[in-house]
Parts: sequence; C-alpha cells; structure tokens
Amino acid sequence: MEILLANDDGIHAPGLRALHAELKQLGNVVVVAPAIEQSGVGHTVTYRSPLQVEEIFDHGQHFGWAVHGSPADCVKLGILEFSPKKPQLVVSGINSGANYGINVLYSGTVAAAIEGAFFGVTSVAISLNLDSPPDYERTARRSVRLIRDLLARFPAEGLLWSINFPPSDVELKGVRFTSMGIKRRKEVIERRIDPRGKPYFWSGTDPLENHILDAGTDIEALSRNYASITPLMFDLTDTPRLQPMLQEEWTCD
Amino acid sequence: MEILLANDDGIHAPGLRALHAELKQLGNVVVVAPAIEQSGVGHTVTYRSPLQVEEIFDHGQHFGWAVHGSPADCVKLGILEFSPKKPQLVVSGINSGANYGINVLYSGTVAAAIEGAFFGVTSVAISLNLDSPPDYERTARRSVRLIRDLLARFPAEGLLWSINFPPSDVELKGVRFTSMGIKRRKEVIERRIDPRGKPYFWSGTDPLENHILDAGTDIEALSRNYASITPLMFDLTDTPRLQPMLQEEWTCD
Repeated sequence: MEILLANDDGIHAPGLRALHAELKQLGNVVVVAPAIEQSGVGHTVTYRSPLQVEEIFDHGQHFGWAVHGSPADCVKLGILEFSPKKPQLVVSGINSGANYGINVLYSGTVAAAIEGAFFGVTSVAISLNLDSPPDYERTARRSVRLIRDLLARFPAEGLLWSINFPPSDVELKGVRFTSMGIKRRKEVIERRIDPRGKPYFWSGTDPLENHILDAGTDIEALSRNYASITPLMFDLTDTPRLQPMLQEEWTCD
Repeated sequence: MEILLANDDGIHAPGLRALHAELKQLGNVVVVAPAIEQSGVGHTVTYRSPLQVEEIFDHGQHFGWAVHGSPADCVKLGILEFSPKKPQLVVSGINSGANYGINVLYSGTVAAAIEGAFFGVTSVAISLNLDSPPDYERTARRSVRLIRDLLARFPAEGLLWSINFPPSDVELKGVRFTSMGIKRRKEVIERRIDPRGKPYFWSGTDPLENHILDAGTDIEALSRNYASITPLMFDLTDTPRLQPMLQEEWTCD
C-alpha cells in the first residue's frame, strides 16, 4: 500500500516519527510535513507565494520532504509531486494535543486529512490529548491497529476519519465511534495590558470543561478515557435545511 | 440590531468599506477586521502568541478595530471584547474573490462566519467573483437586500450562510439556494526551477473549470451568472455513516 504521512507539528515532531516507524508495516510511507510547526492553522493554503521544499535525511537515509507551508499544502504536494503513485491512504499526526469538538475546524492535523479526502483518498487524522507526558510509541501502535481495522471493515475509498486518544497516563477504557461535539459552553479571551499601557489579548485556552459533554460525542468519549473515532465529511451544506429552500424564488436587484 | 462586520482582506479593503456603508441601514455596525490581508488562511486561530489590536479612524471618526490575526480571531474578539452587547448578526466580506465548492474550507471569509455561528449568532459570508473589475457598491446593496430577506424569512438564531456573486460585469440572472459543490475535476501544482536550480511549487490556481458543475451547486449557479446562497453547518460528522458504527465494539491494545 502507498501511504502519505503528514502532520501539523513539523517533520521533526516525535508524534510523526513514532507513527512513521509503525506505519511501515502497512506499506511504503512517503513523509511530507511542514518544515516548522503549524498548529492551529486550520485549512490554510499557500497560493500567494510559492512553496519551497527541503529533502530531510535521517542517519544519511532519505526520511521525507519538509514543506515551508501548511499541513494542507503538504498533502497537495505529497499527492501531486512526491508520491510515486496516488496514495491509497493519507495519515496525519500524531498531533501533540487532542482535536475534539469544534476544534476540528481549527486543526491543521485534521485539515491535512480533509485535503487527502478532497483527492478521494481515505484519510485519517490522529491526535493525542496531552494532559500527561505523551507516549507516542504506544499511541502509534494503537493508531496503526485502528487504521488497519478501519481499512478492513470500511474499505470504501475516500473516507475521512479523526481519531483522538486520551492522555497517555490513563488506562484506556476502549474505543468509541463518536460524533463531533458541537456545543461550546464558553469561550474566553484574556485581556492584558502591555508595558506601554495598551491592551492585548490571549485566546485559545480551551479545556474539555469549556465544552458540553453530550452523550456520543468525541468530547464525552475522551472525558471518560475512551479513544474516539469520528467519521467526518467535508460537505458543509446543511442539506436538511436546504431542501425546502429550493422552492424559493428570490431576486436582489 | 447589533452587527459585527469582519473580513479576510483586511480592514482597509474596499469590499468591507462598501458593505459597512450599506449595513448601517440595518443597525449598529462594529468593525473588527485583520490589520493585513489574510486570504486563504481557513479557520486559523492565534493562540501561541497574543493578539494586538489597533483602533482605526476614518476622517477623524472611529471606524473599527484592526487585529493582527486571522478572520476567526477578529470574530472572537469582536463578540467577546468589542461589541457593546452580543451581536445578532455577523457579516464577513465582501471578499475579493468567490468562495465556492471546497474552497469554502480554505476561505478566511467563510471561517469568520463559521466562528460567529460557533457563538450561536446568525452569520453570513459574502464573496464576489473577480473575473471583471469589482463593483463593491452594487454588490453591497444586493448583499444587504439578501441579508434583510434571509433574516425575515429564516429568523432562527445561529444560522450560517455563504453568498457568492458572479462577476460585476455580467447581468445577474437571479438568486439560487444551492449546495456546496464537492467535486473537483482536477488540482494542479506548477513546478518551477529557481535561479539556484532547485524546484519550487505554485499552488492554488483554481478556476471554475477545475470543478464539476453538478446541478444545484454553488459552482453551477455562479457559472450561469446567478448569485448563490448556501446554507452551511459546522458539524462535520458524517452522521448517516456513523449510525451503523455505533454498534461496533473495538479495542486497540
């Protein structure tokens, strides 16, 4: 099997290295990952400036391609330029930090997987909650087991999955198929004053407690120390709401 | 009505200025927009560094707040810090360029609207195809007419809309409620050689012709010179596919 591996933490991140070592069991792994960390960049794409790429070596052997761009850029380049043939699988991760609830939309890790699905390639994003020191090696073994099982059980092409693992120091209770939690209890921005007397703002502190733990969601599964597997799609159309609108006759002049 | 206006082209962009002038008919407009252009940043959020903000004046009068961050950052700050009370409407645009098909996921303009919907506020992204010189003033008048009609006809809170207009020089055929086109015919990256002999890559040339014009999509409506209104949602769960999976019992150790 031809596999493309990307992430958003950068090509030297330990989560990617651990996953690379395990994924080799499943096939030929091409690594295309950001040259520098890209967390929180969502589905950024670079189109106003060109993308530069460096070949990265490990102990004198080719390891992969470092892209001066976003996770989605990496997957585009990986599929169109650096894979010897079209990959059958795109994997993104292991991200240092969980990507649950609406954070899915902020996540560069998930965006890389969505980009893979744009090309019709089954794609999996993998994220690890960081509330304790991360054990990426064990998480990589668990990830490859789940990827193998997903490919066997749901063999259709172009499926899109997001997997989250609870922190490494807790006993994993099991695996749950979940929905994306969509209810945020609160969002805070912290206002501070700089040394010149001017306000500035910190955003993005988003603990699990800020979310509503609806049953069946990724957030609730993680809060109970289950790994979550969420089947995603990239069609944002609100289809049930659209249906009756198709009868509307509007003008705007 | 309390309105928050953002964009991704920056606070000085003519599309935002034109929309601001028209939106004042509907209520009090607070402008919070990026200090510099942020196209293609998707749902980027700034959380590793603080956000700095400048007050912007126009002819000696307060015009708005320029944020050194992403469109989504602007909406967070707009709702949590700069609106005198929680807005009833977030508007993002007018973007210089259409946001149809899967480009919705790359778009900072749409991400700003999605961020508004995260807060439960009805949010509208507005984009103008740029195949001819843009007439933002006319597009702003059409936009406000559509926003007024959307609020009257679909008054529920927290709805999310993306509106695209065909180029300014074509005769507008009407308005269509559409789905997001999800089929890209092809994607190209152009490989070039730099003066030092090293390859580099250009991405992001994405004309309408790269997409499949399925009936009922935003792409098809635009190609026939209709304005498109697409109802969006931010829950990416593939719910039909999830349902049978809820019976699965998996482990990964």
